Amino acid sequence: MSPASPRRRLPLPSWLPASRWLADYQRRDLSADGLAAVIVTLMLIPQSLAYALLAGVPAQMGLYASILPLVAYALFGSSRTLAVGPVAVISLMTAAAAGQVAGGDSATFLLATTVLALLSGLMLVGMGLLRLGWVANLLSHSVIGGFISASGLLIAASQLKHLLGIPLHGDTLWALGASLLAQTGRIQWTTVILGLLTLAFLFWARSGLKSLLARTRLSASAADLVSKAAPVLAVILTTLAVEGLDLRRAGVATVGAIPGGLPALSLPAFDAELWRALLLPALLISLIGFVESVSVAQTLAAKRRQRIDSNAELTGLGMANLASAVSGGFPVTGGFSRSVVNFDAGARSPLAGILTAVGIALTALFFTPWFQALPKATLAATIIVAVLSLVDLGALARTWRYSRADGLAMAVTMAGVLLMGVEVGVIAGVLSSLLLFLWRTGQPHVAELGQVPGTEHFRNVQRHQVQVSPSVLSLRVDESLYFANARHLEDQIYDCVMQRPQIRHVVLLCSAVNQIDASALDSLESLNQRLGDAGVTLHLSEVKGPVMDRLRRSPFPKHLHGRIFLTHFDALRALDPASLAPPP
Amino acid sequence: MSPASPRRRLPLPSWLPASRWLADYQRRDLSADGLAAVIVTLMLIPQSLAYALLAGVPAQMGLYASILPLVAYALFGSSRTLAVGPVAVISLMTAAAAGQVAGGDSATFLLATTVLALLSGLMLVGMGLLRLGWVANLLSHSVIGGFISASGLLIAASQLKHLLGIPLHGDTLWALGASLLAQTGRIQWTTVILGLLTLAFLFWARSGLKSLLARTRLSASAADLVSKAAPVLAVILTTLAVEGLDLRRAGVATVGAIPGGLPALSLPAFDAELWRALLLPALLISLIGFVESVSVAQTLAAKRRQRIDSNAELTGLGMANLASAVSGGFPVTGGFSRSVVNFDAGARSPLAGILTAVGIALTALFFTPWFQALPKATLAATIIVAVLSLVDLGALARTWRYSRADGLAMAVTMAGVLLMGVEVGVIAGVLSSLLLFLWRTGQPHVAELGQVPGTEHFRNVQRHQVQVSPSVLSLRVDESLYFANARHLEDQIYDCVMQRPQIRHVVLLCSAVNQIDASALDSLESLNQRLGDAGVTLHLSEVKGPVMDRLRRSPFPKHLHGRIFLTHFDALRALDPASLAPPP
Repeated sequence: MSPASPRRRLPLPSWLPASRWLADYQRRDLSADGLAAVIVTLMLIPQSLAYALLAGVPAQMGLYASILPLVAYALFGSSRTLAVGPVAVISLMTAAAAGQVAGGDSATFLLATTVLALLSGLMLVGMGLLRLGWVANLLSHSVIGGFISASGLLIAASQLKHLLGIPLHGDTLWALGASLLAQTGRIQWTTVILGLLTLAFLFWARSGLKSLLARTRLSASAADLVSKAAPVLAVILTTLAVEGLDLRRAGVATVGAIPGGLPALSLPAFDAELWRALLLPALLISLIGFVESVSVAQTLAAKRRQRIDSNAELTGLGMANLASAVSGGFPVTGGFSRSVVNFDAGARSPLAGILTAVGIALTALFFTPWFQALPKATLAATIIVAVLSLVDLGALARTWRYSRADGLAMAVTMAGVLLMGVEVGVIAGVLSSLLLFLWRTGQPHVAELGQVPGTEHFRNVQRHQVQVSPSVLSLRVDESLYFANARHLEDQIYDCVMQRPQIRHVVLLCSAVNQIDASALDSLESLNQRLGDAGVTLHLSEVKGPVMDRLRRSPFPKHLHGRIFLTHFDALRALDPASLAPPP
Repeated sequence: MSPASPRRRLPLPSWLPASRWLADYQRRDLSADGLAAVIVTLMLIPQSLAYALLAGVPAQMGLYASILPLVAYALFGSSRTLAVGPVAVISLMTAAAAGQVAGGDSATFLLATTVLALLSGLMLVGMGLLRLGWVANLLSHSVIGGFISASGLLIAASQLKHLLGIPLHGDTLWALGASLLAQTGRIQWTTVILGLLTLAFLFWARSGLKSLLARTRLSASAADLVSKAAPVLAVILTTLAVEGLDLRRAGVATVGAIPGGLPALSLPAFDAELWRALLLPALLISLIGFVESVSVAQTLAAKRRQRIDSNAELTGLGMANLASAVSGGFPVTGGFSRSVVNFDAGARSPLAGILTAVGIALTALFFTPWFQALPKATLAATIIVAVLSLVDLGALARTWRYSRADGLAMAVTMAGVLLMGVEVGVIAGVLSSLLLFLWRTGQPHVAELGQVPGTEHFRNVQRHQVQVSPSVLSLRVDESLYFANARHLEDQIYDCVMQRPQIRHVVLLCSAVNQIDASALDSLESLNQRLGDAGVTLHLSEVKGPVMDRLRRSPFPKHLHGRIFLTHFDALRALDPASLAPPP
């Protein structure tokens, strides 16, 4: 049998991204995809239950969110190895948003989580079709980084309730802390011991188990995969402990009965007010889910010299969320750790995702009774270990050292998330990074220039030994001219001239000006007028081609009292030749 | 008596801006200031009554807003000739904001207008103290221009009710139009005739009267001043007509009894909910009032080679609004037409403003009975003529021709103001100009470069006849690298390399890169990694000094697989010397 025989087995339309990888699918890929699917399924079962717990929904919804969404992404996504499903940060955002609109009503809460998946799916597909992927750029890396770290801390704090066996309420660090302090007397110590043991085991598995396995005959990557399966072992051991030691009687809370079977397909009920209230959270969930997922997909694609089309990614993730919504799930996206495991386990194509979905479907059909005695504390410990690896507080110091503005945006995001909740945090972060960007470019570096003697070069008078004309002021602006700096520059230059009554000409060197928008054009017009009224002539030099093309479409070159020189040296030669030093 | 005798007559503290102009006040300035004050007072009386009408408050509040605020600005402002008081656009914004919170209750409406002045005053003073004047830069010229034009149209439409003698309701063009169509049968024709005659006279005065006066022995500037006093003449003539022809019986609405006397000093009652609801409108009123006022002040200052300190202007306008709030007025700012008249009439110092305040105070004390028979139609005509001169629809076409993005922002602002009200309009405008800026700089111009044969210069391969290396890709990015374009550039460069398997090196020419923020640094790191994984080495060349200083504070230069070259020619000489053309 030729290796090409499985080609074009399925009559898929060519516009479907999946047709591309199915067209050259090889039989030998199947075993690789199958193995990866088994490993990811084992990893995904406890994760899907845990993230359902984090999102505040019944455990089976975690399984449902790990079946159809994986199939939808395999058909519509552009990454070959991204593993889609419930992830920690998105589950936290889902819980916060649904909690806000539900007001304590659990039916509304469940409906809200499904509506969030639906709205988020519609938004992502819409952005994909309109090629609006660039909107995600509003989230700067500092904001994303701060958001992920702070969310990790907040998630860990929120899971303390399962480790301590007491109900904690609140969406912020303060609220959770206050809730904890009020109930210290009610801590359930059997649960605490079980939870701490699980935590210790999971942390040890991350480092100790790996080096232990490395000493065996296992390859390094296999050792890595086995150590990543530690949560499965923890699930089995603690479930057996609960059954064997009858810990439920000692007060240990377990997952309890999970209805078996596959999800029924249906659309969430329409409720205009509820949908409207969830629009903004759904947008934030979409953007953050997309940014996180696409960066994982790109990192993995680069390792095999493949490429990710970010608009196709939007559609793929959107379809995954729509699939989640119609099958009773909640918002999903591409997860970092699962995707890395999928890649490392050798997944060759999105078929691995489809096979994983089959694995979870089988679990939902046949194995749910096995999780009845699974302690919630185990799942909480799994979550805590997973999210604490996302927390990178050192990034704050590193970013601050590199750029005060970015560090500040990160700090604002983190403080917002921890003290005022995920939504306020991300919005405060976006606004502060925008304002800081405008503030920074709003006060651009303006250098006064002089001639480097004997050359045609002009340099900053404060940094170099240069020749300066008494009547011609040479200024270089190191920034595009646009609305955020137009007025400031106009004033700065005007004030600078007013302080030196002997100045007759101002020449603006525009070599670093990549754009001049309409506001800056108005400011140049007004500067030209104000300087003219004060008896000073404004000139430009070294205007870039595209900028000059645009200026020619305006009346400014006609209004300009001075000239536009090709080079700054030309300007000085025309305006004050006596000031120029002769060549040595 | 020496001309220096009036120096330092008042023991003012030196931190008060007024101490500066009082210190060198000359006796001969007094007569100039006095004359200007008389002319501005005559102009301000009908304007203050008209803008009170526009703001929806009793006529005397217009007078009150023209007394203490002028004194406060004279003491704290930095412009020598700016005439502060009620202005059209701010009065419209006041009416819209107060109308929204009052819900038809006139006591709440009046309280809201005073609270708006108070909040706006506090915000302006606060921004002045914190030196936050740059926040006003968020309002691009396109947004301001579109806002002023659209507000002018909306104000003119809103005044139709006084010209037609029917009550019109609504804050948008649609609402006003619908209200008008529903009441066409109730139009008060005597009022219409009176209003149209006044309108015709005022329009004629703007052009015809001026040229008529120019033929007399009056100087051009005096003719200009007299023609600007036409509203006063209109007020006198129509008041006499109402009295003489008993037009009130024919249904012509008049200003009615205005309580005489000076305003009592008091603070508006505190109402947390009301204040909170007015925070955003007060911020918008502050910013728009400030931007409009400061540009007038700067234009006038330039004509006498004086300077405006924008932070002092914030404080000055803030104190004027606080003064308005404690004396029963509504929000004020520097007005364009009055300031020009003040300047042209020869005002030398802010004393002209104080004398104008005395003039208005005398009016409030003794002359209010004279306005009892003044028809509202006359005031409406005054407003319409004044605001239609602000409408510049051609600006939309001009801006669009220069820059699609700016034109679009202006169109969004205008449509927002006309169809959804002033607040929505200005917010939509600001957001759209921000998003368009991010979108534009988010997809920067990236040129592939080749060597101009025989030189050390590198130019765009699409525009010039150049020499290209088969293994080294030379790219120049014409934009600072920051969060809005970082990810896009990373993908663009990576995809570009993936399409050409023969490429071994990528050199990024950074001569137009004024900044690299933390997001862009992350993207460079990731690009370096992704290219490295694909067997391609990333290099930089011609990095600017300040950008390089900052990069050195990060681990990026260490992580970079390639090198950072001083010049692009150096890079090619090191990486692929064979590709370089020899000098001719």
